[in-house]
This record gives sequence, C-alpha cells and structure tokens, in this order.
Amino acid sequence: MAADTSTHADILISEVGPRDGLQSVKAIMPTPDKFRWIDALVAAGVREIEVASFVPARLLPQMADAAEVVRYAIRHPGVTVMALVPNLRGAEAALRAGAQKLTLPVSASREHSLANVRKTSEDMVEEVRAIAKLRDELAPGVRLEAGISTAFGCTLQGVVPEDDVIRLAAMCVAAGADESGLSDTVGYANPAQVRRLFRRLRAEVGQHAGAAHMHNTRGLGLANCLAAWEEGVRTFDSSLGGLGGCPYAPGASGNVVTEDLVFMFEAMGVRTGIDLEKIMAARVPLSAGLPGEPLYGMTPDAGLPKGYTQR
Amino acid sequence: MAADTSTHADILISEVGPRDGLQSVKAIMPTPDKFRWIDALVAAGVREIEVASFVPARLLPQMADAAEVVRYAIRHPGVTVMALVPNLRGAEAALRAGAQKLTLPVSASREHSLANVRKTSEDMVEEVRAIAKLRDELAPGVRLEAGISTAFGCTLQGVVPEDDVIRLAAMCVAAGADESGLSDTVGYANPAQVRRLFRRLRAEVGQHAGAAHMHNTRGLGLANCLAAWEEGVRTFDSSLGGLGGCPYAPGASGNVVTEDLVFMFEAMGVRTGIDLEKIMAARVPLSAGLPGEPLYGMTPDAGLPKGYTQR
Repeated sequence: MAADTSTHADILISEVGPRDGLQSVKAIMPTPDKFRWIDALVAAGVREIEVASFVPARLLPQMADAAEVVRYAIRHPGVTVMALVPNLRGAEAALRAGAQKLTLPVSASREHSLANVRKTSEDMVEEVRAIAKLRDELAPGVRLEAGISTAFGCTLQGVVPEDDVIRLAAMCVAAGADESGLSDTVGYANPAQVRRLFRRLRAEVGQHAGAAHMHNTRGLGLANCLAAWEEGVRTFDSSLGGLGGCPYAPGASGNVVTEDLVFMFEAMGVRTGIDLEKIMAARVPLSAGLPGEPLYGMTPDAGLPKGYTQR
Repeated sequence: MAADTSTHADILISEVGPRDGLQSVKAIMPTPDKFRWIDALVAAGVREIEVASFVPARLLPQMADAAEVVRYAIRHPGVTVMALVPNLRGAEAALRAGAQKLTLPVSASREHSLANVRKTSEDMVEEVRAIAKLRDELAPGVRLEAGISTAFGCTLQGVVPEDDVIRLAAMCVAAGADESGLSDTVGYANPAQVRRLFRRLRAEVGQHAGAAHMHNTRGLGLANCLAAWEEGVRTFDSSLGGLGGCPYAPGASGNVVTEDLVFMFEAMGVRTGIDLEKIMAARVPLSAGLPGEPLYGMTPDAGLPKGYTQR
C-alpha cells in the first residue's frame, strides 16, 4: 500500500496488459508491436508495467520473447518493469534480463494452485523464499511481490477462507516477499469483502500490504477498487482495454479496464499521473498488434464528459 | 434515504426499466408483454417499479398505454407503482389511474431543463407545488418525488454547480415533494462527488433525501451506488438488463443494471429482498416483448460464483 512519491500522483496504476492480457488471448502479438504498445503506455504516464511472464515458450508462446521485451522496456527511465515468474527458474531468467520487480502468483485455493502451477500453496511459499534469496544475490534492488490469487474465491474450490488468505500473505512476507497483494482472479469479490480482507492484510503485514488486482467479471471491478482505495490501498492492477482475464465470462471483460479506472480516480481528484487522452490513444498500438481482438472500456466508448479537464 | 421496513430488506431497489428503459428504445413493447414483465419483476421480489410515463402519446408512443399499465400493476399487493409525470396534467392522469408514487424530473441544468420539458428549473418547482396540492386533494397517500436530473453534470451545460443542485432539491421539498433524489442523467458522476452531494442533500433536507439514480455510461454505475450507500442512501434506481439510459454511449449501457446491482449488494450481505435467480429470469419476458433489443449485465453473462448462496 506504499504511496508512490516519485511523481505527482496519489496512487500507482500498474498496467498488466502486456502480460496478463496477452497471455489470455490466442493471437501472438509480434515483438515490435509490444514495444510500440509499451512506448504508448509510458508516454501516457504509466509508471509500472507488467511486461511479460517467464514461463516455457511451449506453454505460453505469447511470452516467448519475454527477455527481449524486458530488455527493451527497461530503457524507459522512471518506469518499473515487472515480470511474472511462476518459479525460481523463471525468476532467474527475469532477473538476468533486467526485470525491476517480480510477481509470483501464490494461490490461496489448494485446487487452483495445483491446477495453475502444479504445486501446493506451501510449496509456493518455499519458491518465494528461494527467489528472495536469489534476488538478494543477483539484484538486491529488485522488489518481489507475492500475488495471492483466488483471494476472494475460486471457480474450482468455491469459497476460500479468509484466514487462509491472510495466513498465506503473511507467510510470503516472512519468506522474503516485499509485498503481498490480493487478486480476485475469477471475479468473485464484493466491496465489503475487499475492505475486510485488505484491512486484515494491513493489520497482519503492515507496509508489506500490496496491490489490489481486481477483475470486472461481474461488473464490480471499479466498485471493488474504490473499496480497496477507501481501505488505504494505493496500488491497483488493471489492463488496457480490459484485455485478458477470465474466459468464463463470455462478452465480459476480465481485468479492470485501465481507462475506466484512470477516469474514476481522476474524476474523484485522486491523481494517477496518467493522461486520460493519451492512455486512450494507447489502444491504437494495442489493436495494431492484435487485429480483431475486442477491447472493452466504457469511458473510451462514451468519451470524456463535457467540460472535463484533467488536473 | 428512508430504509424500507416493510420486508426483510436493508435497501430498496426501484426498477425503472418499464418507464426509463422502454421510453429510450425505438420499439414499442405490446401491453400484454409489459404485464408479463412486471409480473416477473414482482415474482423476483421487486417492491417498487416505475411502470410508465404520463406524457402525450404523440411524443412517446411507447407510453400510450400508461394508464392501463398502472391499473394492471396496482393489483400486485406490496408493490409501489410509480409513474413519471412531466407536469400537472400528467400527474392528474397518473393519479386517476391509481399510481402510488409520482416522480417529477426537475433538472438542475437550465439548458437541459429547457430542452427536456421546455420549462426553467424554477418553473418546475412551481409544477411540484401544483402537483403536491392536487395530490393532497385527490390521493393524499401518494408520495411525490422530485428527481433532480443532471445533478452531477450535463451534456449541454457541462459542469452543474453543486450549490444549484442542493438549492433546487430543497426548493422541491419546500414546495411539497416528499423526497428529492439525485440523478446522474448523463453518466458524469464519480464516487467522491456522489458522497459529497448526498451528504449535503441529507444535511439540507434530512429524511426527505431520496434515491440515487445512477447511470453506467462510463462504467462507474456500481461504484457510484456503493458510494451513495456508504453515505446512507437506501433507495437505488436501476433497470433490468440496463435497458435505456444514455444514447451517447454506443455499446454501453445507460442505466445501472439491476441484476449487477442486486448481486453487488447481496454479495456484500446487504439484503435487497430480490431473488437473484428470479431477477435474471425476468429478462425472458423483457426480451420476448422487445425482440432483438440488446440487454446488458455482467452477472447474467458470467453467472453466479461457485458455492454462492443467497441468504
């Protein structure tokens, strides 16, 4: 929940589209298009981007160029280049490529954890420990985030006990993660639950409490982000055009739409550091690299209100 | 902001689809289909329905059967049958048909008021006074609501000063309205503004503070309802399938989607009195009466979470 103090912004919106979005669509975006998309995000004022996932190319061919993308993205000063790593091996590759922040998905649902990474949640905590150790050796300045997935429920297991979520988040911090964030992987969260869990998280791990990663599967994405913000969360994951997310919701976006999230906060007077016109313009290179892929977002469809001026 | 005490519910969701929705689409729903749709809403537990608008049929042929629809709907015990009336003449017709609650749109934007009803806001306050007097004579038990439209901004005028909104709401109450609600007619509202305005409204008119009528034009509909709820609002307007609303947002729903609103509150443990499965089933008669009309709603698309049980 650390507030960003590096720029004139009250919150940090962490763009996950190039990783979370691209790995969820069938088409493979050519590497030069990824570069142009990242450039446009940076030009709009985005200060943290999850650019790739370091998984075997045979599993996710969309991410075969992960190292190349990281090496390109880190040329942008003032931007934190994040990579998702599922294990120690991925972490080593990401660190060697120059990633500035790592995020490791640690599922609070046993069934989801086994299905997603073929490891139990406890095994993943050991992975956090090993990665933190490697990070200390190779690149001590790199931050390590544990993203507690299915923190608000699971399509396989159903209800995920809140005690399990908080205990796992604390175990990850104890194992060396700089922060534990909470992810609504399948779009089950509601605002009351969001407030309750982030309040407990902060009580448990204090300043190690991390980002809110919300989905819009049932339309509650922005309401959940609002609830998290009211509870003191200051970092939010979202995806340009709502790209990616949950395949279980036909016609519905998965990830919270960056454009709508920026509009909500800016309209409230909460500074994101992101230019609304420019972030909507960043849809152009995204679409160019993924022809025919539907993009979501109500604010891009409706346009900005008459007389609206961003501070 | 009066809490509903007639049933086991914490809030009142006022379904506006048969009025707000139907008057916004080109097709005319046959009267028997309106009956079946209203029946399905009632069967789902909806306790307040805005069923018609009493305007000349040459202006809104979709509402030519307004009196007939009111006469049908009032047969349902325990349901408050609302009608929109633009003026004294419409109010008289609605009262004679048996409407149990009237809502009069009073725009806080001078330009919108002239465009919408060809009267200034001040003229509309006089209309409130005349209608309240008529109501006292004809049907003293009928509640009269002033719906302060463009309360959060206007596509014609742009910014609408908050002082204007609150002053107008208070003038309507002074003129005899039982409640003044606030409407985000064009989808400009943000959660901070919603909290600010409803707080001021309640400070100004106390228990005469009325419903939140939010639109989802820029995706903030549920977040704005959440903000209003946190500020003590207990009545929310919404539309099944998001029917109706703002034609300025292609592909975007206008009114807040009833199904998603019910899901949000029920998931939070806030009782709506509405059965989620049955309210989704009420889309069937709606679609039957408006073939080919697109319906919105993320929860109907995604389905309910695994293991979800409504209290």
